Amino acid sequence: MNTKPAASHQSPKAGDYLIASKTCELLNLQYFLQMGKLVQCISNLVHGLQRERGASNVFLGSSGQKFREERACLAGESDRLRKDFELALAEIHEELTGHPVSSRLLNQIASALHSLDGLGELRRCVVAQKITAESATENYSSLIHHLIAVVFEAADTAVDPTIAGLLVAMVHLMNGKELCGQERAVGSAGFSSGAFDRALSRRMTHLLEAQERCFDVFASFADVDSLSLWQEIRAHEREREIERMRHLASSGSRNKDLDPELADHWFKLMTERIDALKQVEGSVEGWFHNRCVERFADAKQSLAHQETLIASLDTEGSSHQPLLVLCDSGSEGATGKAFSNSDVGRQFGRSIFELVQEQTRRLQHMNDELQSAKEALEERKTQEKAVLLLMEHRRISNDEAHRLLRKLAMDQGRKLPEVARSLISMAEVLK
Amino acid sequence: MNTKPAASHQSPKAGDYLIASKTCELLNLQYFLQMGKLVQCISNLVHGLQRERGASNVFLGSSGQKFREERACLAGESDRLRKDFELALAEIHEELTGHPVSSRLLNQIASALHSLDGLGELRRCVVAQKITAESATENYSSLIHHLIAVVFEAADTAVDPTIAGLLVAMVHLMNGKELCGQERAVGSAGFSSGAFDRALSRRMTHLLEAQERCFDVFASFADVDSLSLWQEIRAHEREREIERMRHLASSGSRNKDLDPELADHWFKLMTERIDALKQVEGSVEGWFHNRCVERFADAKQSLAHQETLIASLDTEGSSHQPLLVLCDSGSEGATGKAFSNSDVGRQFGRSIFELVQEQTRRLQHMNDELQSAKEALEERKTQEKAVLLLMEHRRISNDEAHRLLRKLAMDQGRKLPEVARSLISMAEVLK
Repeated sequence: MNTKPAASHQSPKAGDYLIASKTCELLNLQYFLQMGKLVQCISNLVHGLQRERGASNVFLGSSGQKFREERACLAGESDRLRKDFELALAEIHEELTGHPVSSRLLNQIASALHSLDGLGELRRCVVAQKITAESATENYSSLIHHLIAVVFEAADTAVDPTIAGLLVAMVHLMNGKELCGQERAVGSAGFSSGAFDRALSRRMTHLLEAQERCFDVFASFADVDSLSLWQEIRAHEREREIERMRHLASSGSRNKDLDPELADHWFKLMTERIDALKQVEGSVEGWFHNRCVERFADAKQSLAHQETLIASLDTEGSSHQPLLVLCDSGSEGATGKAFSNSDVGRQFGRSIFELVQEQTRRLQHMNDELQSAKEALEERKTQEKAVLLLMEHRRISNDEAHRLLRKLAMDQGRKLPEVARSLISMAEVLK
Repeated sequence: MNTKPAASHQSPKAGDYLIASKTCELLNLQYFLQMGKLVQCISNLVHGLQRERGASNVFLGSSGQKFREERACLAGESDRLRKDFELALAEIHEELTGHPVSSRLLNQIASALHSLDGLGELRRCVVAQKITAESATENYSSLIHHLIAVVFEAADTAVDPTIAGLLVAMVHLMNGKELCGQERAVGSAGFSSGAFDRALSRRMTHLLEAQERCFDVFASFADVDSLSLWQEIRAHEREREIERMRHLASSGSRNKDLDPELADHWFKLMTERIDALKQVEGSVEGWFHNRCVERFADAKQSLAHQETLIASLDTEGSSHQPLLVLCDSGSEGATGKAFSNSDVGRQFGRSIFELVQEQTRRLQHMNDELQSAKEALEERKTQEKAVLLLMEHRRISNDEAHRLLRKLAMDQGRKLPEVARSLISMAEVLK
């Protein structure tokens, strides 16, 4: 790869910058190959923490009677996965810190690491039973939230549409799976106590709806293999049993009339579902990796090809100075016609020009395709902002704010992101 | 600046990544300080080429009788400015090629350099009078278009909202000034010949309207100083005289009844206007430079401050391992309350946490502000795309496509970017 700075005494060449443009793409693909490893480690660590959270919950809920060993064992497993994550982070450290647009990503990593720093203390509180199951869940969930947010920021730095799309699929899948984990916990609490009060069943409804939205976005950006794995989950008979239990949870079970044995069954079903979702994550990761490798090989080949081509043009071109043809890429008025009479020169001029034009079209096309992935991320941000705004303004909970937003959308017959946007813009006018 | 990769045997620290996030901002500001120099050189080179184009036009129009020496002298000046541009390019070369998201920018530079390669041949054709004035203008305009597009792509890589906004102002100012230059040329042709036919006066109208749109966007992103310079131009009595002559050009002067002496007067007035616009560009550049220096100094100070703070936290914190407090940044459910009893630990935890949160808020705020600048660039791209689409689809000229787009907007009572967007989305459905 030839990216030596042009010596200041000689004119920089168009060909060199075309090569630099291609090299730049290559560097970026290399960066995302490594980023894929980091995302994989985060996916694993999140899964480990979700399992540890589940076991801690049972442990605390049973006043330390159940899952003592399981919890300790799962905590050990989380530590191992944390090490992997930290190693992947160290490996990509240089690229990350050299990447000029990753301030937000780096800061989000700081958030996640800071959350991880509290894990030891959290566990001590759990073991000593100095913390409620609810509070422990909150803390684990917050930590998981910070880890998933790292993937979100990574997706936001992608410029290749396929890569950005797969990261968008991944982050929504991870979010959906996490909401599924929360649903497992809330459902367990309700079934164990034999009843779902109004607050609990509302929360169940919210977690389900939020999951659906995440999986919808996932489905529209996922690769075919991961999508068909997801459809298998949907078609599995387990799903119908979960539906039946969700129905129990959400309707008329206020009088402690549920068999507490259902709790174990619910936990088992949801755990299977979560494990199946983890496999979909694995599939997205695999696809992501292969796609990066493929794109990298393509880009490398194309670079080598162009280097050869440009070198030959340079050699031949030097005897026919100057290259010429002022062509045009759609600007006002110019027609792109050559005005030189040198056929050889025209040949060269057109070749370099066509290479540059081809790269322009390709980059433009990539950018167009990138937009839908960026929009999905932007919509998510907008929605979170609208929810925060409602929470602050009306002093309501996160769940209630989500519900209110959905109600507004339904009442006005508009889409959720649209309502969220209007809300934010109106808040700016009204404040 | 401490960005050494964390050694793999020890855990990466939240503080290190917070520092890395700040360092990343600093690097980015440094990059845009250099980019400012490149933009300044492009502004100068474009101005030089516009003057050279004007002189070449007169030279060709007078069959080589007028401006022979002026043209040669201005070509020499352009060459000097081209050297400056190439030097600035060499200076920023390393940062440019190391920047992983600048493929489009690098490719646009390749386009511009390729166009510059044709300049010698173009001039030879002009001197030998082997090219029409119209065709020479087209070729100069295409070259200028490619140079301005470099600034457009540079603006698109900015992440700091002030910097992005000023670059958006700059690129629209440069575009407006270029359209003003084209208006000068078209007007000169009409006045010299004593009449404006339908095509010529339509083109005048188009160039005027397109200018207005550019200057509107410029005005909404410009700094106060540049804006007031622009308002001075608007308020200048020259402006009323230009208006009067534009009116002559656009209405009922089909019968060669215009005094050809008006041509010189028009050229003089428009040249003054263009020179005044160049001064506004200088003001934007100055403001841009100062803003970069200011933001850089701020960021450096903030980084030093946080390094000291984090170092002190590390030292004290090490005797109170582990840091703790699982806090929350607005995720579901978590409440951000500390659950440790260690006051000292809580103190530290909260401090690091607050620093990270502060950085999160700041970056979020910057990103929100950045949106309007990005939208302005996006709208421009969308519009150009809609125009190209209409040109291809209906086989009409650039001017006609612009006019059709404006007519659609007016007929439907919608805004131009909105109509452009609908057009593109409908084209995808209908093709």
